[in-house]
Amino acid sequence: MAETTEAFGWAASDSSGILSPFHFSRRENGDDDVAIKILFCGVCHSDLHTVKNDWGFTTYPVVPGHEIAGVVTKIGKNVEKFKVGDKVGVGVIVDSCKECENCQQDLENYCPRPVYTYNSPYKGTRTQGGYSDSVVVHQRYVLQFPENLPLDAGAPLLCAGITVYSPMKFYGMTEPGKHLGVAGLGGLGHVAIRFGKAFGLKVTVISSSPNKEAEAIGKLGADSFLLSSDPGKMKAAMGTMDYIIDTISAVHSLIPLLGLLKLNGKIVTVGLPNKPLELPIFPLVAGRKLIGGSNFGGLKETQEMLDFCGKHNITAEIELIKLDQINTAMERLSKADVKYRFVIDVANSIPS
Amino acid sequence: MAETTEAFGWAASDSSGILSPFHFSRRENGDDDVAIKILFCGVCHSDLHTVKNDWGFTTYPVVPGHEIAGVVTKIGKNVEKFKVGDKVGVGVIVDSCKECENCQQDLENYCPRPVYTYNSPYKGTRTQGGYSDSVVVHQRYVLQFPENLPLDAGAPLLCAGITVYSPMKFYGMTEPGKHLGVAGLGGLGHVAIRFGKAFGLKVTVISSSPNKEAEAIGKLGADSFLLSSDPGKMKAAMGTMDYIIDTISAVHSLIPLLGLLKLNGKIVTVGLPNKPLELPIFPLVAGRKLIGGSNFGGLKETQEMLDFCGKHNITAEIELIKLDQINTAMERLSKADVKYRFVIDVANSIPS
Repeated sequence: MAETTEAFGWAASDSSGILSPFHFSRRENGDDDVAIKILFCGVCHSDLHTVKNDWGFTTYPVVPGHEIAGVVTKIGKNVEKFKVGDKVGVGVIVDSCKECENCQQDLENYCPRPVYTYNSPYKGTRTQGGYSDSVVVHQRYVLQFPENLPLDAGAPLLCAGITVYSPMKFYGMTEPGKHLGVAGLGGLGHVAIRFGKAFGLKVTVISSSPNKEAEAIGKLGADSFLLSSDPGKMKAAMGTMDYIIDTISAVHSLIPLLGLLKLNGKIVTVGLPNKPLELPIFPLVAGRKLIGGSNFGGLKETQEMLDFCGKHNITAEIELIKLDQINTAMERLSKADVKYRFVIDVANSIPS
Repeated sequence: MAETTEAFGWAASDSSGILSPFHFSRRENGDDDVAIKILFCGVCHSDLHTVKNDWGFTTYPVVPGHEIAGVVTKIGKNVEKFKVGDKVGVGVIVDSCKECENCQQDLENYCPRPVYTYNSPYKGTRTQGGYSDSVVVHQRYVLQFPENLPLDAGAPLLCAGITVYSPMKFYGMTEPGKHLGVAGLGGLGHVAIRFGKAFGLKVTVISSSPNKEAEAIGKLGADSFLLSSDPGKMKAAMGTMDYIIDTISAVHSLIPLLGLLKLNGKIVTVGLPNKPLELPIFPLVAGRKLIGGSNFGGLKETQEMLDFCGKHNITAEIELIKLDQINTAMERLSKADVKYRFVIDVANSIPS
């Protein structure tokens, strides 16, 4: 049996989703591997879905966390891209087949045999995520952090960031001067505002929470705010937007969003409601509109996104917590009570 | 009051949808108008929806028909593009505002103030369609038939044809060698096969009617046939298609169609189910797939499509009927019992 190293994190052991301290092991660092001391880990909505088994495929115990930022502590002999001490990140996947058409086109995120950062079978055991002190990852799935990006506020870029950046690029939602609607102002939405502004777009936040208006404009940089619960304002805004990023993870109606779009308008859905949405065909046909999906991003594009964030000083707005505050944080996340991403200060949570 | 000329057609007078002989008038030919003796008119599924008031906005009496083919009998003094005796067509609209951004970009079909060929308020009266002996249309909304295209089998191109041609162009579904699925083999679907082949695509018909297989391949030129009611065959075909044109007008599930698509696959819906479809978000996200709509086409593109059909000898497969057979034809159309478009032999239906 291969050697392993001890690791420590917080895991959920059943669908109550309650996390508690958990001792486990990481594999020994292989020739193509990078060993990382985890400093920060973002708390993604997928983590919450997984610990509660909302999607039905959780195996317990599970250590969540796929917005991992840390420093390299060891490298395998084939690793040339990284050196000990580098600031690095790990996102949603830690391996894939590397041979399929998608992997060969740097679209590892669409590989039919992905290995997710947690809750995936892998090398005879199961992956465990970043709510823990260390991780060992194949070099291909490790990202270099730009020197000027802080690791704490940068960590959420590894999932929330790439999940909105990738579809904006793929679906051509980057034409300067165009009008982007950001539906839902959470972890994904608030970063989408910043990408939108960096691309030169006019950005309007579409939200049902009137108390988010001041911050959306003042702190996050949106140009305007549209209260989706106000029928008069929604009507006045009809046909004014070129693109919408729909980050809403609850089941919701697409009809009002379709109405906001101009001719040839595009909605990209990146929230993951666990039931189908109703798709009205008339507005789609009458306005030549489209609804597309997108699934985080490949490693090459994720690196490109991090470099773009470095250049434009884009980070997430975060609330830094300790590991022993994670259950309260999850509870608050389930009520969308976070501005705008919890990040666990992992290194300062664990006595060394 | 302006002069008018007598016209004769068949109209529905209530939501029974039964059509019967109807005398009405057409406006006198104006300076920008083209008067047309109607020779043939296709029977579109929209005609059936309209006479039955399925969409809730029919005003009776209504003479349906927006796949009109005929010859020019008179031109206004500003008309230079047409001369008496020309073979011409009229499609879904007969006017629009001509001033909006969409009209100015040759997208009259997306004008917010379109005048449909029938059932639209217009110049103090209401438009009446092509199940009639004549029509007067502003020259901008008249199409020139290529010399080699027969008017009877060419008439359905004016709605069915452009409705599938336009999205194939707009959504980039024309890359030679790619695999197109055509869901639903009716008036739109069978023409989509022929466009697909003309674009150099591999074309598979997706249908729940096993008895359509032989003709789909033999007569219509599809490369293969996929029986949608056979779970084993549907499973085997998963992830094999680049594009799907969904021409199904009944409410149906998008899940199996999404499953047939490869990564980055596209579905265009051109049928008009009158209730929303269920849109599952996971397959959309996991495969970066999109669902788009499209609404017939602008006049410039419709002319381009007709010219393309002339070049590639593309016509519809039709069953030619007389006007007094229209009620039986509508009944059969409602059961999808037509191969593949009824066309009314108008001139030979009306005693001169």
